[in-house]
Amino acid sequence: MAVQTVASTTDSTVDLGPAAALSCRECGHRVPLGPVFACEECFGPLEIAYDFSAYDTEELRKQIEAGPANIWRYAPLLPVPADVATKPNINPGWTQLVKADNLARELGVTGGLYVKDDSGNPTHSFKDRVVAQALEAARAFGFTTLSCSSTGNLAGAVGAAAARAGFRSCVFIPHDLEQGKVVMAAVYGGELVGIEGNYDDVNRFCSELIGDPAGEGWGFVNVNLRPYYAEGSKTLAYEICEQLGWQLPDQLVVPIASGSQLTKIDKGLQELIKLGLVEDKPYKIFGAQAEGCSPVSTAYKAGHDVVRPQKPNTIAKSLAIGNPADGPYVLDIARRTGGAVEDVTDEQVVDAIKILARTEGIFAETAGGVTVGVTKKLIENGLLDPTKTTVVLNTGDGLKTLDAVAGTGLTATIRPNLDSFREAGLA
Amino acid sequence: MAVQTVASTTDSTVDLGPAAALSCRECGHRVPLGPVFACEECFGPLEIAYDFSAYDTEELRKQIEAGPANIWRYAPLLPVPADVATKPNINPGWTQLVKADNLARELGVTGGLYVKDDSGNPTHSFKDRVVAQALEAARAFGFTTLSCSSTGNLAGAVGAAAARAGFRSCVFIPHDLEQGKVVMAAVYGGELVGIEGNYDDVNRFCSELIGDPAGEGWGFVNVNLRPYYAEGSKTLAYEICEQLGWQLPDQLVVPIASGSQLTKIDKGLQELIKLGLVEDKPYKIFGAQAEGCSPVSTAYKAGHDVVRPQKPNTIAKSLAIGNPADGPYVLDIARRTGGAVEDVTDEQVVDAIKILARTEGIFAETAGGVTVGVTKKLIENGLLDPTKTTVVLNTGDGLKTLDAVAGTGLTATIRPNLDSFREAGLA
Ligand SMILES: Cc1ncc(COP(=O)(O)O)c(C=O)c1O
Ligand SMILES: Cc1ncc(COP(=O)(O)O)c(C=O)c1O
Ligand SMILES: [Zn+2]
Ligand SMILES: [Zn+2]
Repeated sequence: MAVQTVASTTDSTVDLGPAAALSCRECGHRVPLGPVFACEECFGPLEIAYDFSAYDTEELRKQIEAGPANIWRYAPLLPVPADVATKPNINPGWTQLVKADNLARELGVTGGLYVKDDSGNPTHSFKDRVVAQALEAARAFGFTTLSCSSTGNLAGAVGAAAARAGFRSCVFIPHDLEQGKVVMAAVYGGELVGIEGNYDDVNRFCSELIGDPAGEGWGFVNVNLRPYYAEGSKTLAYEICEQLGWQLPDQLVVPIASGSQLTKIDKGLQELIKLGLVEDKPYKIFGAQAEGCSPVSTAYKAGHDVVRPQKPNTIAKSLAIGNPADGPYVLDIARRTGGAVEDVTDEQVVDAIKILARTEGIFAETAGGVTVGVTKKLIENGLLDPTKTTVVLNTGDGLKTLDAVAGTGLTATIRPNLDSFREAGLA
Repeated sequence: MAVQTVASTTDSTVDLGPAAALSCRECGHRVPLGPVFACEECFGPLEIAYDFSAYDTEELRKQIEAGPANIWRYAPLLPVPADVATKPNINPGWTQLVKADNLARELGVTGGLYVKDDSGNPTHSFKDRVVAQALEAARAFGFTTLSCSSTGNLAGAVGAAAARAGFRSCVFIPHDLEQGKVVMAAVYGGELVGIEGNYDDVNRFCSELIGDPAGEGWGFVNVNLRPYYAEGSKTLAYEICEQLGWQLPDQLVVPIASGSQLTKIDKGLQELIKLGLVEDKPYKIFGAQAEGCSPVSTAYKAGHDVVRPQKPNTIAKSLAIGNPADGPYVLDIARRTGGAVEDVTDEQVVDAIKILARTEGIFAETAGGVTVGVTKKLIENGLLDPTKTTVVLNTGDGLKTLDAVAGTGLTATIRPNLDSFREAGLA
């Protein structure tokens, strides 16, 4: 009794499970599923429209709970074929939701604090979730090359997924990323092209390339496959709620680069409510940025609806997008849910990485330092309620941003004997 | 109807679940559970003796399958209390068993090739499994400091687990380890002491410290808690078999440092057979070393029963133990099961890391390069049967040994425009 969609309700011939069509977020214009991302009517972003009408809530819950310990347990809610778990993919997800009691004590949270630790994914960032979706779309549309513009983590995720699934890959990154991210992205054997410029330059170039014969037949996971790619972030919302016992948390703190992840976490929560998988209640979504690249928090604080681009300068390179595509939607969500968007300095980022490591044994990359640091700041300035259930996202891995904590090392060096041990004051 | 042990059959008062006593691997002498590791009669290593007598096979299988997606699903088979999953621990395990069809094609394996990818663990090595056990033992025995001698991965695992569980930690490593391992071990905020010497010097020093008042009250996970610690490696055997649909693989390729992991994987397989959870059939265990530290493979090839210590010199630093405690048992197991012990050069290690990354999108540390490289060599020299089901272990993470593939990087650097793209020959 697998939960299935009714094929006749889709206006497309590719089998991407419950995905029925693409629809414009701005004007609602609907087009068949395909490798397109902008509305032909209004240039608004296209999103997946689903047909979930055949689903029975308790059947669906049972199917999910009996599913694999990865994102494919949610296949009925994603733009992927029902047999997705049998195809070569990197199968991310079902990462730990850590009850962070030590961190809670440190930050003064009494209502229950959790860290959703996505460093457990195959290439150790949440990007594996979105790439896994884009890969299925690329397969459905017959692409043989996977590509992307990346701030670092996406590059590794695309390289790994392409290798596993037998795609060629060609990945574009700013030329000055962290060594861990560069080596990891390169080791899978695809093309890795450094661009002299920042991420926004890389992204602009990729948009050019997609319109050029040279980029024909390429699936850019975060450009022409963006509608599919973005849905991967919904799985963070699904997992958090399922891991909380099918309950919404009261508050979530989410990092912002392009803003896609935050937007889709909200979409995921809304879907769970509509499907009856969680009880409806208010939740607040907080966005987190680094001060050195804070176009969204700046707009939030100024009360603006649009986001003014910035030139990034921060150690949180994975979040260094100065011109975030989904910025306005993030502002919308933060305001609608009663959340906020806040930023922290690079120093606070480093402090927060160390606090999280020391209290919970989780080694986050700078993006995790941003969310933990922002959580601390939001509590201090009274915007986040410490008596409510709060989930903080760690979306990346400290091993990829070693330089941020490079001062951390040996506390002593000794010769291998007790005298030397005592001399060092260790006894 | 939880499967439980009968308390009255244990000769100890601490509650470590089915663990009934410690018994000497050499002479069988039995002592109560405690922080001891060597037999008082013959100096042989002490192992956990279990009481599994009350277990019904199908009840047990059901309990396991309904358990959490981590090693605690096997709590009934481990020296931990039944409520272990509710205590603060890092909860490793249930990592991916990747069906490695691309690698199989590359190596000519037709019988089914799998990579057990333990880089998905919390600190990205299999060491989280053993530390999670040692932590429970330390808690049971009332220790408040966790310590270890480490080739790098164990240091990070101990630091993280101690932080999560509120233990002090003091960890000893050779002073010249990889940056990733040093920073990771340090970031959790415990003491991290570099020793001027190699791992064998570090280990010798820790044995001294344990007999000194300065080390009193310290739980050295791989010294006085070694009997408990070592059991964590059984979970690799359990997971592999469960993930294969409760079947034994025909062949396993396992890295060797001290030899503990390989020994306990064999123990785990034997337990599954005795408990009726898998059908009994022959399996072969192959050990893998780096040529620059190959005391066990040297002894194996020479037909010796004892292992002559070596001075390590290899990039596979995590396996650089020149005087492996469990070497003789490894020789025993390789011979009894019809396996072998083989070694590869550092160059072959690097090649193998790249092959695994390119074919399967898995970025292994040098230890994973050793197992994949040895698998290739064993096929070439006819010792490993490519028509049989084979499981290769990747026990660590490439991000911790970046230098091994440091030559890998950008394939091109361009300016952000199509002309520059074409000039670079990328179009
Ligand atoms: C670690 C990490 N966290 C969060 C993000 C934010 O992603 P988004 O662009 O969806 O806002 C990124 C983006 O690169 C990232 O690498
Ligand atoms: C990545 C990795 N694999 C394998 C091993 C081997 O462990 P053992 O000492 O149990 O043989 C180690 C030991 O440090 C390790 O770090
Ligand atoms: Zn439109
Ligand atoms: Zn004995």
